[in-house]
Amino acid sequence: MLDNLPKKTSIIKTKEKWKVSASTNAKNCKNYIRELVDNLVLEPNPEKQVIALSLGDPTVYGNLQTANEVVEAVLDTVRDGACNGYVPCLGLPKARKAVAKYLSRDNVIYEEKDIILCSGCSHSLELCITVLADPKKGHNILIPKPGFPLYRTLAENLGVTVKMYNLLPEANWEIDLNHMESQIDEDTAAIIINNPSNPCGSIFDYNHLKDILDVAEKYKIPIIADEIYERLVFPGNVFVSATSVSSQVPMLVCGGLAKRFLVPGWRMGWIAIHDPIGAFENEIRTGLCSLSQKIIGSNTIVQGALPRILECTPQTFHDGLIDTLYENARIAYKYLSTVKGLEPFMPQGTMYMMVKIQMKNFPQFSTGLELMQKMMEEQSVFCLPGDAFGIPGYMRLVITIPKELIEEACKRITEFCGKYFMEVQ
Amino acid sequence: MLDNLPKKTSIIKTKEKWKVSASTNAKNCKNYIRELVDNLVLEPNPEKQVIALSLGDPTVYGNLQTANEVVEAVLDTVRDGACNGYVPCLGLPKARKAVAKYLSRDNVIYEEKDIILCSGCSHSLELCITVLADPKKGHNILIPKPGFPLYRTLAENLGVTVKMYNLLPEANWEIDLNHMESQIDEDTAAIIINNPSNPCGSIFDYNHLKDILDVAEKYKIPIIADEIYERLVFPGNVFVSATSVSSQVPMLVCGGLAKRFLVPGWRMGWIAIHDPIGAFENEIRTGLCSLSQKIIGSNTIVQGALPRILECTPQTFHDGLIDTLYENARIAYKYLSTVKGLEPFMPQGTMYMMVKIQMKNFPQFSTGLELMQKMMEEQSVFCLPGDAFGIPGYMRLVITIPKELIEEACKRITEFCGKYFMEVQ
Ligand SMILES: Cc1ncc(COP(=O)(O)O)c(C=O)c1O
Ligand SMILES: Cc1ncc(COP(=O)(O)O)c(C=O)c1O
Repeated sequence: MLDNLPKKTSIIKTKEKWKVSASTNAKNCKNYIRELVDNLVLEPNPEKQVIALSLGDPTVYGNLQTANEVVEAVLDTVRDGACNGYVPCLGLPKARKAVAKYLSRDNVIYEEKDIILCSGCSHSLELCITVLADPKKGHNILIPKPGFPLYRTLAENLGVTVKMYNLLPEANWEIDLNHMESQIDEDTAAIIINNPSNPCGSIFDYNHLKDILDVAEKYKIPIIADEIYERLVFPGNVFVSATSVSSQVPMLVCGGLAKRFLVPGWRMGWIAIHDPIGAFENEIRTGLCSLSQKIIGSNTIVQGALPRILECTPQTFHDGLIDTLYENARIAYKYLSTVKGLEPFMPQGTMYMMVKIQMKNFPQFSTGLELMQKMMEEQSVFCLPGDAFGIPGYMRLVITIPKELIEEACKRITEFCGKYFMEVQ
Repeated sequence: MLDNLPKKTSIIKTKEKWKVSASTNAKNCKNYIRELVDNLVLEPNPEKQVIALSLGDPTVYGNLQTANEVVEAVLDTVRDGACNGYVPCLGLPKARKAVAKYLSRDNVIYEEKDIILCSGCSHSLELCITVLADPKKGHNILIPKPGFPLYRTLAENLGVTVKMYNLLPEANWEIDLNHMESQIDEDTAAIIINNPSNPCGSIFDYNHLKDILDVAEKYKIPIIADEIYERLVFPGNVFVSATSVSSQVPMLVCGGLAKRFLVPGWRMGWIAIHDPIGAFENEIRTGLCSLSQKIIGSNTIVQGALPRILECTPQTFHDGLIDTLYENARIAYKYLSTVKGLEPFMPQGTMYMMVKIQMKNFPQFSTGLELMQKMMEEQSVFCLPGDAFGIPGYMRLVITIPKELIEEACKRITEFCGKYFMEVQ
């Protein structure tokens, strides 16, 4: 009998069955919008064409196209064939230089060394959060509420706690500075600010930015400034980059081509390092550089074309986009202002409009989500519920779709709200 | 005096000075090649043009260009303008379908749902390691030695331990199966295999793959198969995907356009899920899907062009590339075989050739690194030291450069080695 024993027994047991679990990391990677939307019953009215006012993608309906100059720049780069190889992880030097020039303004001058090209602004944000916030030290970061849900996804996936600071709808979605300050603690590693804001469509002015940076300065907390909607502002407003505010606060500015150039699929993002007193000099620049080596950044076709894209896209293209968005915003605002039970916020820029739903006037629905499900069912109109951004009782409209569809959607929303509105004392 | 106290004292102290540290994560993100190369003194001989045999980028010298069909497919996609928007995080459905078709062969049939598009094969590898290995559970993964250093960078950055299994130079760089098995423990979450191999230029045959998978099966450890050099094999050899081997082992296959289509800068990678018994069904597919949402994958220009790239690139293009690489490999092999003190390994595929340096014959140098520094100084020829891949005493030559340069480089290596070679008993 003994002879039948295996000669060499290995220390670890072989297993009978396959069982492969996903890592904690993968399980903790949440898409908050999808989780929410997946739990809604979204059955459109088969008699009415669906109008999706939910997707933050300006290209969906084909009415908004990037500039010819942008297309030509990319075509030439592809034809030329000189940009198919690997480039340095931080990006092609001439492309980094072009971004530096594009972002330099007022008193802020960037150089090539201050720019890191990334695979979309999402990747920029990931690198910035990763380099600044250390889960091993119990770090947290501050993010806006309402705000873009990816901040939370990225931070929590790294094991970094998020703490939310409120935006004030009644004060044009400015930051509640007292609340923000109260959220800061010894472990706060960064504050993310998003200006112009998704989902609010609001723009911070110089003074407000100054107040924000004063808080950051007081506690010496660096800022991650998500400026992906930079310069997408409507007449009467001015875009001020947080970096233009005279301050010592070190900042990582995240941006990219996605929105202003209408090419979100191209995945061209960047980080601009603004570091007036050299606080990032020792470790953060090196850290970002190391992290950028993991996936070697953005595709070289767009990198090669970037100098021409940024230099040769005519102002008329940018103006035209603003005109369209502004017109759509005014149409939606005008319509929805007359709808009892809704309170639209006229955006100052971006591609979005926030609308408050006065839930007390719609007693048939216990939540905004229920109301929006019903609106889909009856009117085939879908907006993203404020819940997706951390603010229930609101909905966010995307204003990039064709004018006629905006009008039609507003009509349907009007009809729907008219049907369910109840006066309350 | 008391009146002068601040009315409201905040609980946390404000700081006097800025001090921003990089996170542990960023500090742990190591580029092993760069660390090594940065520590070398690389001063070329000013009288001789530098020949870099170090960069794994086939496009550097311009002698290798991607196919016209590939360029045309991308040009049309850009002109068409229909692929500028966001696509699902897993990739454009028609592009996923095209990869599924491209990879299906023998008894292995992929469907759209089995393919995830990523920002380069590096990103594919990152997602695979992240989903399978859990640092919270003390997991480790097995990687080849010598091997591509990014495996270690990615794993260690996640907090996952790496354990190395040896490849056997004397057995055509096959895996030392006993050693591999001895490295497995209860916490081993995945085994990375790389075939065809960077840096070895070797190809595993069916039987060897079968033996590898038998070990994986015995301990029920899933495989990450890095097949970025798939089908880059020289006459007389056959590329067998690990998935073609009849086995129950679940695998994540990483690949992309970078090498076979000569466009590494385009950052188009993929994961193919091969899961004969459904071990990945519950958690791994979902986990990969969640993780892919963080940076929204690869650029849509190449995604849109992918079906045509994969279907319409003529076989003559692929054959031509093989011819060139094979010719270069034979030239280098022939030359270096005659050089006393060197032992070149004729590659069976890929873009690399390994050369053993008989250090005992070069007593003037105490390490291969020293020898290679001197070779740069005198001959302006630079190859990557085996140390970069975990195997000192070797050097890796890139064989993608123009034939004349390969010849010139070999001449110079010959001259250099002739000068320093010493016979030993
Ligand atoms: C506020 C904000 N930041 C970042 C992003 C991500 O941009 P990208 O598509 O370049 O990753 C978006 C996209 O909608 C956004 O709204
Ligand atoms: C073995 C191996 N795997 C993966 C990669 C990364 O490929 P990509 O450029 O698509 O990220 C390389 C690149 O050299 C490689 O040699």
